[in-house]
Amino acid sequence: MPAVIDEHPGRQESRAAALAARFVAIRRFSERLAAPLSPEDQTVQSMPDASPTKWHLAHTTWFFETFILARFDGDYQPFDPRYGYLFNSYYEAVGARHPRPQRGLLSRPGVDEILAYRRHVDRAMGELMARAEGKADAALCDLLELGLNHEQQHQELILMDIKHVLSVNPLRPAYQPARPRAETPIWPMRWLRHGGGLVEVGHAGHGFAFDNEGPRHRVWLEPFALATRLVTCAEFLQFIEDDGYRRPEFWLSEGWATINARGWTAPLYWEDVGGRWHVFTLSGQRPVAMDEPVCHVSFFEAAAYAKWAGKRLPTEAEWEQAAATLKLRGNLADTGVLHPMPAADRGGMQQMVGDAWEWTASPYVAYPRYREPEGAIGEYNGKFMANQMVLRGGAAVTPPGHLRITYRNFFPPDTRWMFSGIRLAEDW
Amino acid sequence: MPAVIDEHPGRQESRAAALAARFVAIRRFSERLAAPLSPEDQTVQSMPDASPTKWHLAHTTWFFETFILARFDGDYQPFDPRYGYLFNSYYEAVGARHPRPQRGLLSRPGVDEILAYRRHVDRAMGELMARAEGKADAALCDLLELGLNHEQQHQELILMDIKHVLSVNPLRPAYQPARPRAETPIWPMRWLRHGGGLVEVGHAGHGFAFDNEGPRHRVWLEPFALATRLVTCAEFLQFIEDDGYRRPEFWLSEGWATINARGWTAPLYWEDVGGRWHVFTLSGQRPVAMDEPVCHVSFFEAAAYAKWAGKRLPTEAEWEQAAATLKLRGNLADTGVLHPMPAADRGGMQQMVGDAWEWTASPYVAYPRYREPEGAIGEYNGKFMANQMVLRGGAAVTPPGHLRITYRNFFPPDTRWMFSGIRLAEDW
Amino acid sequence: MPAVIDEHPGRQESRAAALAARFVAIRRFSERLAAPLSPEDQTVQSMPDASPTKWHLAHTTWFFETFILARFDGDYQPFDPRYGYLFNSYYEAVGARHPRPQRGLLSRPGVDEILAYRRHVDRAMGELMARAEGKADAALCDLLELGLNHEQQHQELILMDIKHVLSVNPLRPAYQPARPRAETPIWPMRWLRHGGGLVEVGHAGHGFAFDNEGPRHRVWLEPFALATRLVTCAEFLQFIEDDGYRRPEFWLSEGWATINARGWTAPLYWEDVGGRWHVFTLSGQRPVAMDEPVCHVSFFEAAAYAKWAGKRLPTEAEWEQAAATLKLRGNLADTGVLHPMPAADRGGMQQMVGDAWEWTASPYVAYPRYREPEGAIGEYNGKFMANQMVLRGGAAVTPPGHLRITYRNFFPPDTRWMFSGIRLAEDW
Amino acid sequence: MPAVIDEHPGRQESRAAALAARFVAIRRFSERLAAPLSPEDQTVQSMPDASPTKWHLAHTTWFFETFILARFDGDYQPFDPRYGYLFNSYYEAVGARHPRPQRGLLSRPGVDEILAYRRHVDRAMGELMARAEGKADAALCDLLELGLNHEQQHQELILMDIKHVLSVNPLRPAYQPARPRAETPIWPMRWLRHGGGLVEVGHAGHGFAFDNEGPRHRVWLEPFALATRLVTCAEFLQFIEDDGYRRPEFWLSEGWATINARGWTAPLYWEDVGGRWHVFTLSGQRPVAMDEPVCHVSFFEAAAYAKWAGKRLPTEAEWEQAAATLKLRGNLADTGVLHPMPAADRGGMQQMVGDAWEWTASPYVAYPRYREPEGAIGEYNGKFMANQMVLRGGAAVTPPGHLRITYRNFFPPDTRWMFSGIRLAEDW
Repeated sequence: MPAVIDEHPGRQESRAAALAARFVAIRRFSERLAAPLSPEDQTVQSMPDASPTKWHLAHTTWFFETFILARFDGDYQPFDPRYGYLFNSYYEAVGARHPRPQRGLLSRPGVDEILAYRRHVDRAMGELMARAEGKADAALCDLLELGLNHEQQHQELILMDIKHVLSVNPLRPAYQPARPRAETPIWPMRWLRHGGGLVEVGHAGHGFAFDNEGPRHRVWLEPFALATRLVTCAEFLQFIEDDGYRRPEFWLSEGWATINARGWTAPLYWEDVGGRWHVFTLSGQRPVAMDEPVCHVSFFEAAAYAKWAGKRLPTEAEWEQAAATLKLRGNLADTGVLHPMPAADRGGMQQMVGDAWEWTASPYVAYPRYREPEGAIGEYNGKFMANQMVLRGGAAVTPPGHLRITYRNFFPPDTRWMFSGIRLAEDW
Repeated sequence: MPAVIDEHPGRQESRAAALAARFVAIRRFSERLAAPLSPEDQTVQSMPDASPTKWHLAHTTWFFETFILARFDGDYQPFDPRYGYLFNSYYEAVGARHPRPQRGLLSRPGVDEILAYRRHVDRAMGELMARAEGKADAALCDLLELGLNHEQQHQELILMDIKHVLSVNPLRPAYQPARPRAETPIWPMRWLRHGGGLVEVGHAGHGFAFDNEGPRHRVWLEPFALATRLVTCAEFLQFIEDDGYRRPEFWLSEGWATINARGWTAPLYWEDVGGRWHVFTLSGQRPVAMDEPVCHVSFFEAAAYAKWAGKRLPTEAEWEQAAATLKLRGNLADTGVLHPMPAADRGGMQQMVGDAWEWTASPYVAYPRYREPEGAIGEYNGKFMANQMVLRGGAAVTPPGHLRITYRNFFPPDTRWMFSGIRLAEDW
Repeated sequence: MPAVIDEHPGRQESRAAALAARFVAIRRFSERLAAPLSPEDQTVQSMPDASPTKWHLAHTTWFFETFILARFDGDYQPFDPRYGYLFNSYYEAVGARHPRPQRGLLSRPGVDEILAYRRHVDRAMGELMARAEGKADAALCDLLELGLNHEQQHQELILMDIKHVLSVNPLRPAYQPARPRAETPIWPMRWLRHGGGLVEVGHAGHGFAFDNEGPRHRVWLEPFALATRLVTCAEFLQFIEDDGYRRPEFWLSEGWATINARGWTAPLYWEDVGGRWHVFTLSGQRPVAMDEPVCHVSFFEAAAYAKWAGKRLPTEAEWEQAAATLKLRGNLADTGVLHPMPAADRGGMQQMVGDAWEWTASPYVAYPRYREPEGAIGEYNGKFMANQMVLRGGAAVTPPGHLRITYRNFFPPDTRWMFSGIRLAEDW
Repeated sequence: MPAVIDEHPGRQESRAAALAARFVAIRRFSERLAAPLSPEDQTVQSMPDASPTKWHLAHTTWFFETFILARFDGDYQPFDPRYGYLFNSYYEAVGARHPRPQRGLLSRPGVDEILAYRRHVDRAMGELMARAEGKADAALCDLLELGLNHEQQHQELILMDIKHVLSVNPLRPAYQPARPRAETPIWPMRWLRHGGGLVEVGHAGHGFAFDNEGPRHRVWLEPFALATRLVTCAEFLQFIEDDGYRRPEFWLSEGWATINARGWTAPLYWEDVGGRWHVFTLSGQRPVAMDEPVCHVSFFEAAAYAKWAGKRLPTEAEWEQAAATLKLRGNLADTGVLHPMPAADRGGMQQMVGDAWEWTASPYVAYPRYREPEGAIGEYNGKFMANQMVLRGGAAVTPPGHLRITYRNFFPPDTRWMFSGIRLAEDW
């Protein structure tokens, strides 16, 4: 939810114009992500957590239709009134909805019909924005900004989810062609120290942020150090080869139960092919590149690795302090690689932005004095604050322009289909 | 498995030619059934029992490739060697296979690729048949005949399965347009008596039959009577309204547990829409037509209805005796209705062929002295002889030319997505 | 349900006296069976199918209370009115009941209280029987006879169920001391031929029988032969060592799925201890005795073994024909062995009575013209006629005086905690 | 794990003597708790989370045997070497163990045998302690202190678990007699303000504490207020009657899913009996007393109530600050009530100690610079730090002498068989 409050009318006007331009760009980007996929690809749901591509394309559209057009455009005619039921994700306040695990059972509406739905809504949004300019409604702009950030989140989900769909197919089809690359030497882990003390974390500046990123508040930190790069596949492989997945002493109790119940012996998408570890990527299956960050590990695996290594995971406050002055540049979705890349052998913190989301030791809870927004929009973040852990820093599938240093991603500790990696921390 | 043994060479030759012609017709019919469906429709699997349309199109092709081309055509190049794993249904002897409940997770190969696979195999089959003519190999003809009957079974499955896929979609899309029809008066149930005694049942004549239809053998029957038509929706509705689904005294113990665990209160595809029972058909959802046979009931519901009505279900031997002299004509898939129709008000047995498969009181077991064929083909029928009940007579989705009076269909007693109805019997 | 109709008043009187005597004897026998068990033993339910000993002791008592005392004794005061809910097993007509899988959650009433309940009901029954003598009510006698047969069935269940309870305890405690025995040579399988034809099966004579054993009726049999003894552990071990549990060609499809899902590689209660097969018996765990009949196999295992051996299982009509003239003598519960014993090396059919229930190839269905009794008693047998197979001949835990040649036991094909073995048949 | 380090030898000696006395007292108290229970009661496991009483009696004994006698007493002979497998709870480092959900399947060892096991170990412990006096081994004393605190935790579990066992019995048996009490007027909620700032929390003093209570560390708090008493049943009933369980806006997403999946509409042990809410207590079922604290709510229910009330739950640091100066006095297990009591109408914080554990808003994570102890003892606390929430303050079933203000209890947010209640907090 937007924490933005910007009452200057002229700025509001130019804000509306800027948003209208971003609207077009972001909506097109979603369709570009879907373009390499067949109607069959876009229909499949490979697990309850993941949704079909065409569902994402429709749901993001429904968001604008429901929260903006239905409220700000008196003349708006819904494309199909039954879509409200089909494409609501989890907004209890908006009414009943189709069960999440059954999204893959819906062959209709088909991809073509959903693209028509997008055009219908885009046209209405375009007209609404055109009319709105001048009158510059801050509430509309706030919701639009939220809708665009929401669509960007689903862009990342489109890539996460289709990766899973393609991975469960024994044919192991690729989303995009592979770009061969030579492996690089791995430089030894370096550590950046921080003296701790009473610091401030959370969003406070201008511009959009999700409600859960604020309020900005004080936190006391003990002195700590952070690794300047992510854990590599080579390093994680040592953990595996040291029987890491078979030694309970490294694992949280629930983590140990999880890996045994599900038979996990390596990160998601790793497969032993003829005695050699391979990894499935959006560019198909290939041998694991040792210099790349390990990716698609659960919190349980991240924590076990850290314990094996004699280290720990950073808290989100530590992470945010260490990142506070960094630029929002890195291997994000616009590089087109769609997979984590090796860290540059440079001073300073590497891979904090992009490559892989970094598990923190922090459960996802409200910041002090956090208040959920009113209404359905209030369901955006707060209601998920149980049994989830915070991840920071974005990944190679995160759309550019979406991230902030204060951005709090969150997932249950046993999930790993998102692009999640490991950065180590230690006390000093 | 073919019980046919016909050694006369001239007849074998003309048999090969006839089979070649049937091959083309039957293969085309499968594709015609799929034609109204989008790639998205053909991809979805709505429950473990039902398979995606495109899987059926591929699996029937794999059958010819595996059991005929790989054996009789030394030069045959498989379209894609990985398809053996994807499209084997349950033949343990042929090797590992993709798990049945995950067929809907396969977006690739897509519909276009599967149609290309069909053309590849059809071409090779055509050439093989052309070469074979003159030499007329009986084993090849037997397998070809089996393959065609197999494909016809999957044609019925295509219709059963897509009906389920479309039914779980809240949009309730139709497979084909509706053909409106006026309801007709329902004539009272009439009974045809049979004196019983030592009779013969099972397949013995010329022509193809599945292995499980023989050997022909003697059975002792007590005198019985059979209803001359199927139970109508009007009659079944009386059972519902008499609290049939809430009174345990009519139900087998496992049936009572089943309807309570699954919350069944009416046949599959019935839905109370605004206080009126509707039914979902391949032509969409519409009010239940009272004159039509009730359809999509489980064995448990059929048996409970019969008990409520003070009757019972026929055994399969009784059914076969009563049907022995009937013509194989009725409301089968070639009428294009794809739904059971009211019985004609005529003397004699009505609706024995087509409309709806009729549950019998007979568990599906081997006939005396039955022997499974050798090899993978032996897995066709025998291994399913546990916890299933026999159904007889075909349904409105059964392809013409596929049925026999001795035909034994079989399903577990709690299934109902096939077109299954009720014919009553009684002692006398 | 009693098929007995015997209107001669004098005989009724002596029947009542005889029943009164049997009542005392049978009731005592239940308590004797429970005597070696601690209160803790009698409380545990080790799987949903099996019930705690003390539940059996109470449920059999509830049967007399509900179906006899409540009906025939106007002055009867229930021991505790809440027991009706706790100790009804499955009689829907009698009202709601405690869920079967939760019987092991009931610590109260305790064993002492249940024994007091038994004494309360026994006293009332004794008085009722005393008053009834002379007036000799046939309906009461019929129900009493049913109640006694019912209690005998639960005596067998007490032994089956406590065997399972003790077996899941890593301490492997014994119900009774072991009686060491020297192994005997195994004589080769012999076959008894039967010419088939039109035969009669089912109960028709005087004396008690369950409803499902009749009516007596005609059946046509093809010529067949029956093995004159049960399959031994030595023979079954050959099946195991020939990879019987790993070769799908011997298995029904559902059987193959069952053994893989449950990880079965041997009969229930077999365990590989240090490279040697051991078996858990009511006298504790010990090495498998090769000369004994294999026991505790499911129908799926019995059918797979028969197929591997190139034979088949008998139908229940075949079995009954072969047994028709046998005496009801054998290794039943009164030998005290409580485990199958090797067959005597003699001519004629061996082990038909006692030792192990014999799986037949016959699904459990109603005989022609079978009618369920009215009322709750009608739920005794008929409602279980789905997805079960018939077993014949009794076992080493069957109480003497309970069995008949026409007796039809029945279990689902995947169950094996009853004492079930294998007798082979073949066509000739 | 003991944080105690106390090297002064004389004090060590008197510490050993004091511990020896506490050993006897605490061991006796466990047996006194079990005394009202029959062998049947002590055998039942009513859900996987809860263990049979006799298992608790044996497991606490195994703890002393394994971690003290096996290490410090070279002559010790285990009572039964197989008990290690049966009575290990979750110590992976100690070896394999019997699966937790199957503890209720073990009828043997019986209660008498387990009491003999206790006497065997108590005798050996007594001798060890006697020998140890003078030599005064700090490691032994630390482990002994841990073992006693461990046994006290299981004393609370004995009461929690047997309450659940008795509650699922339709007879609703009582653990102890009821003590009637007149209801008192409920005084309005009052609030105690705290100015926040940089505070210290965690254990630092002398004496035993669990490892997870330290290290003592600084935390920044915003100003807050805490309710001076727990939420009453009367107040919680208003939430229920305001459709609290049917309005998603109050619930965390996972909480909403939980209450719907499990059909929760009130706290555990509440039951609508003839239109009036009753509650099951260790003294049997009776009408809900409106003045008592609501108890047996999950974190989800506590959080939903707080949101409905326009408040929030306290963090554990807030709770600890507010409690810092309180005496460890309250309604603990030694009052014998074994149920929360109404708050006294007095100034100051009420019910902070005893009555009901208080859900905090804090996930259970390690304090900064926390290190797990080495070895099996290290599994005591740290490995549970995922998906659990902290509760503070003890309950009416917590043994006296066990609690500290810094004590951190923890449970998953969907559990409620412990005595858990609600204290509200707010920002100011």
